[in-house]
Amino acid sequence: MEQSISLPVFHPGEPLYEQLYRHLVEELRRGRPAPGGKMPSKRQLCALLGVSMSTVDTAYSMLTAEGYLLSRPRSGYVVADLLPLTPRPAADVAKPAPPPSRWRYDCSTSAVDTSLFPFSSWARITKEAVYENPDLLQRGHPQGDLPFRAALADLLGQVRGVHCSPEQVVVGAGVDYLLSALFQMLPEHPAVALEDPGYPVGYAVAGRCGKTVLPIPIDGQGMDPEALAASGAALAYVTPSHQFPSGVTMPAGRRTRLLHWAYAAPGRYLIEDDYDSEFRYSSRPIPAMQGLDREGRVVYLGTFSRSIAPSIRVAYMILPPALLERYRQVFAHTACTVSRFEQEALRRFLVQGLYSRHLRRMGSLYRRKCALFTQALGAIPGASLSGQGAGLHFLLTLPRLSEGELVARAAAAGVGVTPLSRYCHAVPPPPSTVVLGFAGLSQEELDGAAAALRAAWA
Amino acid sequence: MEQSISLPVFHPGEPLYEQLYRHLVEELRRGRPAPGGKMPSKRQLCALLGVSMSTVDTAYSMLTAEGYLLSRPRSGYVVADLLPLTPRPAADVAKPAPPPSRWRYDCSTSAVDTSLFPFSSWARITKEAVYENPDLLQRGHPQGDLPFRAALADLLGQVRGVHCSPEQVVVGAGVDYLLSALFQMLPEHPAVALEDPGYPVGYAVAGRCGKTVLPIPIDGQGMDPEALAASGAALAYVTPSHQFPSGVTMPAGRRTRLLHWAYAAPGRYLIEDDYDSEFRYSSRPIPAMQGLDREGRVVYLGTFSRSIAPSIRVAYMILPPALLERYRQVFAHTACTVSRFEQEALRRFLVQGLYSRHLRRMGSLYRRKCALFTQALGAIPGASLSGQGAGLHFLLTLPRLSEGELVARAAAAGVGVTPLSRYCHAVPPPPSTVVLGFAGLSQEELDGAAAALRAAWA
Repeated sequence: MEQSISLPVFHPGEPLYEQLYRHLVEELRRGRPAPGGKMPSKRQLCALLGVSMSTVDTAYSMLTAEGYLLSRPRSGYVVADLLPLTPRPAADVAKPAPPPSRWRYDCSTSAVDTSLFPFSSWARITKEAVYENPDLLQRGHPQGDLPFRAALADLLGQVRGVHCSPEQVVVGAGVDYLLSALFQMLPEHPAVALEDPGYPVGYAVAGRCGKTVLPIPIDGQGMDPEALAASGAALAYVTPSHQFPSGVTMPAGRRTRLLHWAYAAPGRYLIEDDYDSEFRYSSRPIPAMQGLDREGRVVYLGTFSRSIAPSIRVAYMILPPALLERYRQVFAHTACTVSRFEQEALRRFLVQGLYSRHLRRMGSLYRRKCALFTQALGAIPGASLSGQGAGLHFLLTLPRLSEGELVARAAAAGVGVTPLSRYCHAVPPPPSTVVLGFAGLSQEELDGAAAALRAAWA
Repeated sequence: MEQSISLPVFHPGEPLYEQLYRHLVEELRRGRPAPGGKMPSKRQLCALLGVSMSTVDTAYSMLTAEGYLLSRPRSGYVVADLLPLTPRPAADVAKPAPPPSRWRYDCSTSAVDTSLFPFSSWARITKEAVYENPDLLQRGHPQGDLPFRAALADLLGQVRGVHCSPEQVVVGAGVDYLLSALFQMLPEHPAVALEDPGYPVGYAVAGRCGKTVLPIPIDGQGMDPEALAASGAALAYVTPSHQFPSGVTMPAGRRTRLLHWAYAAPGRYLIEDDYDSEFRYSSRPIPAMQGLDREGRVVYLGTFSRSIAPSIRVAYMILPPALLERYRQVFAHTACTVSRFEQEALRRFLVQGLYSRHLRRMGSLYRRKCALFTQALGAIPGASLSGQGAGLHFLLTLPRLSEGELVARAAAAGVGVTPLSRYCHAVPPPPSTVVLGFAGLSQEELDGAAAALRAAWA
């Protein structure tokens, strides 16, 4: 008497395991099977529904975790005697996160294009990394494995003009994590200067680490050095390659001025987040500030989350000698946050030339997308664009509508755009301006989004 | 004129890339090849030396990063004109970390046995996780992917009596990371109570997060509830399954008393690090405190770094409802620190039953090792052991020698043991006691270590 449950009808647009889970909850609440009864085995259910084992696995795991089913060793799953009829308090507050974007066209700045991801190479090197390196099971170096750090130092030297030895590299699970580690090891800096408008993660991490946040206005060249000097901060976080969100690329002269600010007093440091440096469309890349620094006052941060994929959590930080010493004291007992197999896979990706090939392919794809989207939007009467020379987003200003109207009309047309004011702290937001990301949309979708925005803002 | 360099003679015990790197530095300093000259191609060198491509890759990467070689696109590596004759300041402070243990027998508490690691299953599921889930490239849920969290909730419910919904699970890259996140989201708790003697990582993370550390003595049942109440702390970190380093398992009565401490005032929380709960030899496992908690005052922490491998950086935290709400506010913009492919691989490892099979095999291996080592050491006249009922280490007390003598004589015999005083903060260290880990040594090595210690301490 096992199959006394009805089977679900799946619809597209939602994970199968979630649909199956919800269907089974309904069935169980109706007493099918009755409490104490046996559920179909996972294998049977797979066969009946024509879905993968992992779909059924996940649904059963969720039902077990929530108390609907009991997992009995060797005899499968049975229905619990006391079903959780009312949601438990935990489940009550623990509402699932809001579903992914409901926009027809989501011009968010955080998406990337994954259509060219080299799945077969990645699967191959991942497997090789496990098979060929049994010694990678034991605890590794707290800063990350030396061969991987050497490959990073080599790459950054060639591509970004970063000047460092592999010993100065610290590998970590994301820029947020490394920034947090850096703030924690600098307790003598109670405040940090951040770009305004600026990257939300910088503000969030500084706040969590108990730093006073000093928002410094940006101008057409990036962070304003006079406002920085006047702020009293001794620590400043900047995004010179492609300022977030303005898209400004800091010219060499401004970089030098910021370095002179750092040299003007002992203990001053610049944190250079080399965000979006991988993709430039309109001019030659400017080498990193870190490579210009002669006094060890720049901490360099970078990540693979934009250039490979947001779900690959590998970032790196290059510490100047004085801070490296400090890092080793403060984080002596802390294991590296990136699994060693993953470090080894990524090292192979770099040294086998797969990464630079991938970057070239992504660079031309993004260049095409950027050209397509900026051309279509630039044709809107009265619109002006900025920050489109690099990276995966730009700004659009349309003076005849307010920022609120731009956002609301876009939303009504099914297009998600971000108001620039969301990233402004102490400065008044530049009027009538929105931030548009293009990486996550296909070329057809960019055409569609541009047409929808043209009509919405007419 | 490419091969004007001599070839190295490799010796065992040091990575090949490091030996090759050092040999080439010597050669280059002697002008072989001369500045501007061409290096053998990586492929040629592989063939000449009979080593893998990755060995040569790594050595060349290190030489390039340090300025000895220049990598010329399409024409290979040439010798730099200006060799770094004197170490640069960066390289100067950046001395490599001390080499791995030089002990003949290293009884460290952090090693694990990796001889039974299921390489082929792990390589298979890792590859499947990449191939079958292209959607895992985009950014995932900040707490970790729901199917993985469901599998964790299911596992912890069955194995540890943890009571939670998948929504309450937060996945992170190591217990240190999660503990740091937790401390950061509780700014109203300026102090944290820690076990004394206790886990060094707890002390390090609390210090970095700016918390005042309140060391609370432990007795034969774990953290002393009266000392805890007297300390004024509203946040306490405990390791009830197998206290580090004493090895004490906290009885149910003491768990209840600690819960009552938490219930006695609003905003009090217990952090339960379920350290070493996977391996028990002498009694049935005691369910986690989290499962006893009726008022949402326990944060549960666990990790796969002992049960699978230290290099796999996946840990988890179960938040009570009130803190979950808080977490979502404070960490709204923070991506999960574990790569999604790795989450999916581990989910498959759990739901396909590979994890429980692995735990069973490791459990019997560790039981044998523990029995062997404790029997041999217990036979030393005057020695008494404690904490050997669970986990991967225990304490040995030998009153006729001081702690310093125990450590020094062991060291002279080639055995690395840890003085208990290293983990003591405010309490006076129990005399004549050392901490011995057995997981990283083979059964033959355990025999050898025991014989060496018997002789050294005679």
